[in-house]
Amino acid sequence: MDSRPDSALQLRSTVTPEGTLELTLARVPVAQPQANEVVVRVEASPINPSDLGLLLAGADVSTAVASTREDLPLLSATIDERVLRALSGRLGVSMPVGNEGAGTVIAAGTSDAAEALIGRTVSIAGGAMYSQFRVVDASQCLVLAEGTPPRLGASSFVNPLTALGMVETMRREGHTALVHTAAASNLGQMLVRLCLEENVALVNIVRRPEQEELLRSLGAQYVCDSSSSSFMGDLVDAVGETSATLAFDATGGGSLASQILTAMESAATASDAPYSRYGSNTHKQVYIYGGLDRGPTVLTRNFGFAWGVGGWLLTPFLQQVGPEKFASLRQRVADGLTTTFSSTYSREISLREALDPEVVAIYARQATGEKFLIAPNAP
Amino acid sequence: MDSRPDSALQLRSTVTPEGTLELTLARVPVAQPQANEVVVRVEASPINPSDLGLLLAGADVSTAVASTREDLPLLSATIDERVLRALSGRLGVSMPVGNEGAGTVIAAGTSDAAEALIGRTVSIAGGAMYSQFRVVDASQCLVLAEGTPPRLGASSFVNPLTALGMVETMRREGHTALVHTAAASNLGQMLVRLCLEENVALVNIVRRPEQEELLRSLGAQYVCDSSSSSFMGDLVDAVGETSATLAFDATGGGSLASQILTAMESAATASDAPYSRYGSNTHKQVYIYGGLDRGPTVLTRNFGFAWGVGGWLLTPFLQQVGPEKFASLRQRVADGLTTTFSSTYSREISLREALDPEVVAIYARQATGEKFLIAPNAP
Repeated sequence: MDSRPDSALQLRSTVTPEGTLELTLARVPVAQPQANEVVVRVEASPINPSDLGLLLAGADVSTAVASTREDLPLLSATIDERVLRALSGRLGVSMPVGNEGAGTVIAAGTSDAAEALIGRTVSIAGGAMYSQFRVVDASQCLVLAEGTPPRLGASSFVNPLTALGMVETMRREGHTALVHTAAASNLGQMLVRLCLEENVALVNIVRRPEQEELLRSLGAQYVCDSSSSSFMGDLVDAVGETSATLAFDATGGGSLASQILTAMESAATASDAPYSRYGSNTHKQVYIYGGLDRGPTVLTRNFGFAWGVGGWLLTPFLQQVGPEKFASLRQRVADGLTTTFSSTYSREISLREALDPEVVAIYARQATGEKFLIAPNAP
Repeated sequence: MDSRPDSALQLRSTVTPEGTLELTLARVPVAQPQANEVVVRVEASPINPSDLGLLLAGADVSTAVASTREDLPLLSATIDERVLRALSGRLGVSMPVGNEGAGTVIAAGTSDAAEALIGRTVSIAGGAMYSQFRVVDASQCLVLAEGTPPRLGASSFVNPLTALGMVETMRREGHTALVHTAAASNLGQMLVRLCLEENVALVNIVRRPEQEELLRSLGAQYVCDSSSSSFMGDLVDAVGETSATLAFDATGGGSLASQILTAMESAATASDAPYSRYGSNTHKQVYIYGGLDRGPTVLTRNFGFAWGVGGWLLTPFLQQVGPEKFASLRQRVADGLTTTFSSTYSREISLREALDPEVVAIYARQATGEKFLIAPNAP
């Protein structure tokens, strides 16, 4: 039973040389699968912060207007000239979007491995997931337990592996506890559950009191609210109690990374160490893995000389750990999709809705608690 | 012939709990040397940027006033309340100053190793070098060629080993070329000569046109003047030609580290690489090893995710490379004191002059080309 259509819709993002973002739905062919390939009907694909850079290209979404082109929806928005300069590599190129998703295998090539997947729910991190159908190699599929609703497997790559990557990086670099910012996000909630399982002390930094409650309800022991007047003191206390010397920061801009380093240095020198004009010898590290705040990172260097701030990305991390470790991490995610690595979504939208200016305005905000799931085959 | 006095003068820096910096000359005992110790009459000790933190404690030197206490000179200056908070570890403690220096061995203990040094010129990095006499273990002495004037050996530790440490760090971390800021300093000039010897491409960033001329006269190939309107373009070109992906920054504050990372990223993506929203995969690193600009470090993150900024200090580097490597680096300095590792000074001052507000105002500026040498036994 091959229900593969000849063509299907796929979301595309294009930046014109004149500085306009165009989101369109393209009709693309759905190829006949090669021997080891399968055809997946994509049922659910999340909008992650890591998708938004490619999707929206830094456009000013308040300028977004809807129209149609060749009977298909078109969204246009203006890109600031300064932002445009960094996009020279993609001008005029129509790019598919969507890092990860899940769906049902509806057709397969002739190999046993491919045929065995027919009817199964699979997760894929193949890119171009904001598509109605994807043809991928059978080995790319993470096969979920029989009967798993695709929605449950939509986010089985980016967030779960990032949470696992943070704990793994902590161990590899000789730290024993973690600080995490934007900690009430889906990823942050996973990290709370994972650190409880792994017995790793975790300092969660959130931006609102109700987020603190949410994390405490999951069992989080250390939660610091950056909107509180006692934030800096709370952070120094929590970092001191946990001896955390590694932080992962999703915000990037502003002074948060600097405040974390200051708190770590304060904890490192709280003991009766002799005065050193160079600060403590304790190495303090902040990895910036997102850019919720696109402003500059401002470091007030009152934390000695034993410190580092740098970028962290999932893909180079996975390359670094190698294929065997990668496979074991992936299987761990599959086993924990309804527990440790479960995700929640505030809204499910169709491909057409993903191009609606009012909907774009919401998901572009990247507000914690507003997590969207695209259902590419929804009407 | 033991010409050791019972006591001698030593410069001391004290921060009072009320927030006043006091520079004084203390009369301290000159101990009888133990078996393996020598007594060194200190003839020359430089004022390095790395001494100023301990010496001046961030005081506002424009408030400095001179007086006397117990017939010895006293300089007092005000410390801002915000600065004072970071100094709690040294309140009320009278601290000796001066990382390094050179002098003549005028007395020794009974061991052969100690006795052999009598009359020799030695360099020491023993701290408390702004003293007329220092008693140290013979093994701490770097013995210079017979008849070397002490002035030539005064700066044989901090700057030469830092220059060697930068090149060594470059090799250990897999980079092949360097960027250096405040490059017209004594250290910067050493690095130019060292990189020529080692055939390492070096991009020098200076702040004035005449500094560019100075470095070019030493043979520097790449010099970028940050006061020039073409600076950013010049930097992108130089970084592109050298493929430098590691920088050592003496300034720390402001946007220079960010500009360097931007130039490195621009060079890394100048080829026909496919567009990536995460930037290039080339790791770009800036180490901040000084704080000429005490303002915040401002990073405008337009250089992807493969980057790091962090502190770098000589002492942990030397601990990391181990004693054998340390000994070989030190001998290399001794062999090159009049060539690769030679220093120049704009002025030689006595201990009393080091406490003169007008003199302090000059050396506190840390202006390139104004390098002071203290001669503790000058009248």
